[in-house]
Amino acid sequence: MFSPLIKELIESLRCLPGVGPKSAQKMALYLLERDSQGADRLAQSLRSALDKVGRCSQCRTLTEDHLCPICADEERNRSRLCIVETPADVIAIESTKQFDGLYFVLLGHLSPIDGIGPEELGLDRLETITQQQGVEEVIIATNSTVEGEATSHYIAQLLKPQGIEVSRIAQGVPMGGELEYVDGNTLALALEGRKKL
Amino acid sequence: MFSPLIKELIESLRCLPGVGPKSAQKMALYLLERDSQGADRLAQSLRSALDKVGRCSQCRTLTEDHLCPICADEERNRSRLCIVETPADVIAIESTKQFDGLYFVLLGHLSPIDGIGPEELGLDRLETITQQQGVEEVIIATNSTVEGEATSHYIAQLLKPQGIEVSRIAQGVPMGGELEYVDGNTLALALEGRKKL
Repeated sequence: MFSPLIKELIESLRCLPGVGPKSAQKMALYLLERDSQGADRLAQSLRSALDKVGRCSQCRTLTEDHLCPICADEERNRSRLCIVETPADVIAIESTKQFDGLYFVLLGHLSPIDGIGPEELGLDRLETITQQQGVEEVIIATNSTVEGEATSHYIAQLLKPQGIEVSRIAQGVPMGGELEYVDGNTLALALEGRKKL
Repeated sequence: MFSPLIKELIESLRCLPGVGPKSAQKMALYLLERDSQGADRLAQSLRSALDKVGRCSQCRTLTEDHLCPICADEERNRSRLCIVETPADVIAIESTKQFDGLYFVLLGHLSPIDGIGPEELGLDRLETITQQQGVEEVIIATNSTVEGEATSHYIAQLLKPQGIEVSRIAQGVPMGGELEYVDGNTLALALEGRKKL
């Protein structure tokens, strides 16, 4: 019922996460009927982001500059480094305003079955950074998943011999969590990691 | 926390209907981190749709060709015409497989306050089509809103003098609707439009 170009637009909108066939159709018709300016801007910004965005040479997050805004910020504490899996995790931690150091973005986690080893995560680069730049403390904030834990363990073994203080973010009951509804594994971690009052 | 090009991409993704700041951020990072091929395809298809998609010269729906696939289809019954507000409404009616005629897409409804009058809806073109092409029956399927009703009324007045059979799609209780939960206005329309058994 649609002409080929409109069909192709609907199909290609489906690459967006969370967009199914119905939403893609709605989006395509909306853009063509009512917001061709917005569509034009989107096409342009996609094109320039694709052409120019690469990795920060320091922390490996996404940026079109040599250094990302955080690595370029002279005010940040360069002796502390937080290791995360993705650029979105950087945003999540920044939103807490509790960390003033720099980041290192793995862009994934160790997953031998997918061919993702230490090199793909830039761990050789991480070692160089910690050695050369006098990093004193490393906080590992990979996800609380099996792969995230394995990655965390591997990185800890890698950095400890350098005499760096390595820690892992706490695991336990989330804020507002009612014990009745918290799963058993989380509760076990919360008990194990109890703090003296 | 994001570099300018990534910020611009996030901002421009927000032109999509139903996409807020959080989803836009998720989409942008997803495209850049994991699906640059999909993003490239999206940028290309947006560009070509914007450059080439216009209106069907017959029914005014969106298409890049002179005639849309439905108007070009020789099998359709050219004596029946269904009038709808948007291309999405064409899809909705086509999905019922109950209509074999052609469509006429208003691309809106009468709304003097927004400067949308009969000309903007192509009603002069509609008159020409019905006169020249021997249309015998017109079904008005504008939305069941105040504006849709007003538009329907206007079109009926316009076409009746031509001796065309003009009808309006039925209004009433939707399939599976329980009377207890159907609003009063709908129920009033259902009573008024009762059919003899």
